[in-house]
Amino acid sequence: MRALVFDKTLSFRDDYPDPVPAEKECLVKVRYAGICSTDEALMQGYMGFKGVLGHEMVGEVVTGPDAWVGKRVACEINCVCQSCPMCQAGLSNHCPNRTVLGILNKDGCFADFVTMPVRNLHEIPDSVSDEEAVFVEPLAAAWQVIKQVPLDERMHVSVVGSGKLGLLIAQVISTLDCRLDVVGRNPHTLELAEKKHIQSIDVQRLAPRNDRDVVIECTGSPQGLAIAQQMVRPRGTIVLKSTYADGGKIDLAPTVINEVNIVGSRCGPFADAIASLARRQIDVRSMISRTIGIERGLEAFEINAKPNTVKVLLKINP
Amino acid sequence: MRALVFDKTLSFRDDYPDPVPAEKECLVKVRYAGICSTDEALMQGYMGFKGVLGHEMVGEVVTGPDAWVGKRVACEINCVCQSCPMCQAGLSNHCPNRTVLGILNKDGCFADFVTMPVRNLHEIPDSVSDEEAVFVEPLAAAWQVIKQVPLDERMHVSVVGSGKLGLLIAQVISTLDCRLDVVGRNPHTLELAEKKHIQSIDVQRLAPRNDRDVVIECTGSPQGLAIAQQMVRPRGTIVLKSTYADGGKIDLAPTVINEVNIVGSRCGPFADAIASLARRQIDVRSMISRTIGIERGLEAFEINAKPNTVKVLLKINP
Repeated sequence: MRALVFDKTLSFRDDYPDPVPAEKECLVKVRYAGICSTDEALMQGYMGFKGVLGHEMVGEVVTGPDAWVGKRVACEINCVCQSCPMCQAGLSNHCPNRTVLGILNKDGCFADFVTMPVRNLHEIPDSVSDEEAVFVEPLAAAWQVIKQVPLDERMHVSVVGSGKLGLLIAQVISTLDCRLDVVGRNPHTLELAEKKHIQSIDVQRLAPRNDRDVVIECTGSPQGLAIAQQMVRPRGTIVLKSTYADGGKIDLAPTVINEVNIVGSRCGPFADAIASLARRQIDVRSMISRTIGIERGLEAFEINAKPNTVKVLLKINP
Repeated sequence: MRALVFDKTLSFRDDYPDPVPAEKECLVKVRYAGICSTDEALMQGYMGFKGVLGHEMVGEVVTGPDAWVGKRVACEINCVCQSCPMCQAGLSNHCPNRTVLGILNKDGCFADFVTMPVRNLHEIPDSVSDEEAVFVEPLAAAWQVIKQVPLDERMHVSVVGSGKLGLLIAQVISTLDCRLDVVGRNPHTLELAEKKHIQSIDVQRLAPRNDRDVVIECTGSPQGLAIAQQMVRPRGTIVLKSTYADGGKIDLAPTVINEVNIVGSRCGPFADAIASLARRQIDVRSMISRTIGIERGLEAFEINAKPNTVKVLLKINP
C-alpha cells in the first residue's frame, strides 16, 4: 500500500505492507488524514517513533463486524488492553500497555489502510463531511480542556498559541460564557480567530499581568509556558497541551511562587467532537489551508511548515 | 547592627543601619535564625535579591503595641497591603504589592533586628524552644502541601528530596495514614527519615514506575521534577516546592502525556506549624546540624553547603 514512512527521514512508499487486522480489529481504508504538530515533533525525535506517521483521519471500514463494514469512521488513537488497573478505572487512555496510532508502536494513518480495534471506531454522521471529520481527533483534544478544567462565566481565559490546536480550543471555549482571548504571533491565524468573534492579542503587544484565571498553553514550544506563567493569576490554572521533542529551558519558579496549577492534557472525548461538528458549533473548514494527495506527502509537510499554513489535509482514498 | 548582607557576595557587617519600624510595625530582636536552601538560591541570583538575607527566625518584640512587647515570636514573611483583590480574597500571601522578608525588597533576619507588621507575628508557646521555633516558617511551608492537596489513606505518596524541607514534609505527611516514602541520595538524611519510621529509598536504587498518587518535589534542582514525572501515576499530582536561580532544561512531555497535575506550593499556615511543634508531633531537633554565631555567618554558609549538613542555625541574640 501507499504510506508516508518516517525512519530518520520521511519518505513516500508505494510498497509498504498492508496491515493485518488482529482479532476484534477492523481494517479501515483511510479517506483523508490531517497533519498535526505532533507529526513534526515526531520527526524531530519525540517518542523515538519509526513507522507510518499520522493519527488524524476519517476512513471507511472494509473488513470487520458486519455492523461496521461500509461505515465512515473516525478512530480513537489509543489502542488499550482493557484489563490493567488504568483501563478498569475508566482511564484507558492512560493504559500502560497501549499502542498509539502513528505515535507509539503502531503504524499511523498516512497510508491506504490502518487496523483498528472495533471499540476505537466512531461513526461519522452524514452531516459531517470527510474533510471536517479529519478534525475529530484534535477537536476531541480541545474538548478535553474543559472536561479537565471546568470554566465558568466569571473567568478570564486565554489561549496561548493560535495554531491548529489553539484555534480549536478557542472555539470550544467560545461556546461557554467566559471572557476569552487568544494570544499568538501570526496575523493570519489571529484574524481567523477574530472572524469567529474571538478577541485576539498579538504576543508582541501583550503586557502580561498575572490576571488570567486559566491559560491554555498550546504553542508547541517551551516559550509558551513562560508566557502562560506571566499571564496566569496566583492560584490560577495553566492547561499544558504542548509536547515537543526536546525539553527546553523552563523556569518554573513563577509556578511555585504563585502556587499555580499546571494541568497536563492530552486526548479527549470523540463523542463531543463529533456532536459539535454535526451541530455546526465548531467551524473547521476555514482552518483547511491545503488538501494534497498522499503521493505528494513530502510537499504537504513542506507546506505545513510554512507560517501561514493552518491545517494541511492528505487526500488518500476520497 | 550586625547583619549578613548579600550584594554580589555575602559579607558580615557590624555597622549595618538598624531598621526603623513603620506605622503598625514592631521592632523584633532576632534570637535565632535558620539557613534555608532559598538563601543559597538567592546568592546564585534567584529573585535578584540584595540586602540582609534570612527569613526563618525566632525573636523577641522590643518595640510595638504593649500587648506584644517582650513576646517571643515567629514572623510570617509576606508583608502585604491588605487592600488589593488578592488580600481581599484571603490570598494575601499572593499580594502583588508584598515585600518578603529576606527575599523581596525587605531586609531579612540574619541581623540583630527586623521590622515586622504586627499582623505577621505569631507568639511561640513556652513549650517550644528557640531552636525549634526557627523551624516554624519552613514547617508551615510543609503543612501547606496537605492544605493544597488533601491526602487520604488509599494514596501512595512519595517525597523526592531528603533535605531540610523534604524531611519536614515527610514528617507532616507521616501524621496521616497514607503510604509514604522519601527518595533521596544522601544516606545520612535518609537515615534520619528511617529513624522517624518513614520508609526511605536511595535514588540510585529507585525503579520509577509511574505508580505514585502524589509526589512532592523538594530537591531544589530541575532533576527532581524529572524523577517526580517518572514516579507519578497518570492523572496523579506533583507538588512542586523547589525554586532555583536558573530554570533548568525540563521535559514536560510526561506531564502532558500522563495528564499530570503539577501544583506549585510556597508559604503555609504558621498556626499549624506552631501547634505541631507544641504537641511534639514533628521533631526538628534531630535536623539541627550546627548552631553558629552570626559573626561566623560566612563559615555557617560553608557548613550549610556540605553534603551531610541538614539545618544550620545562626545564634544571634540568644
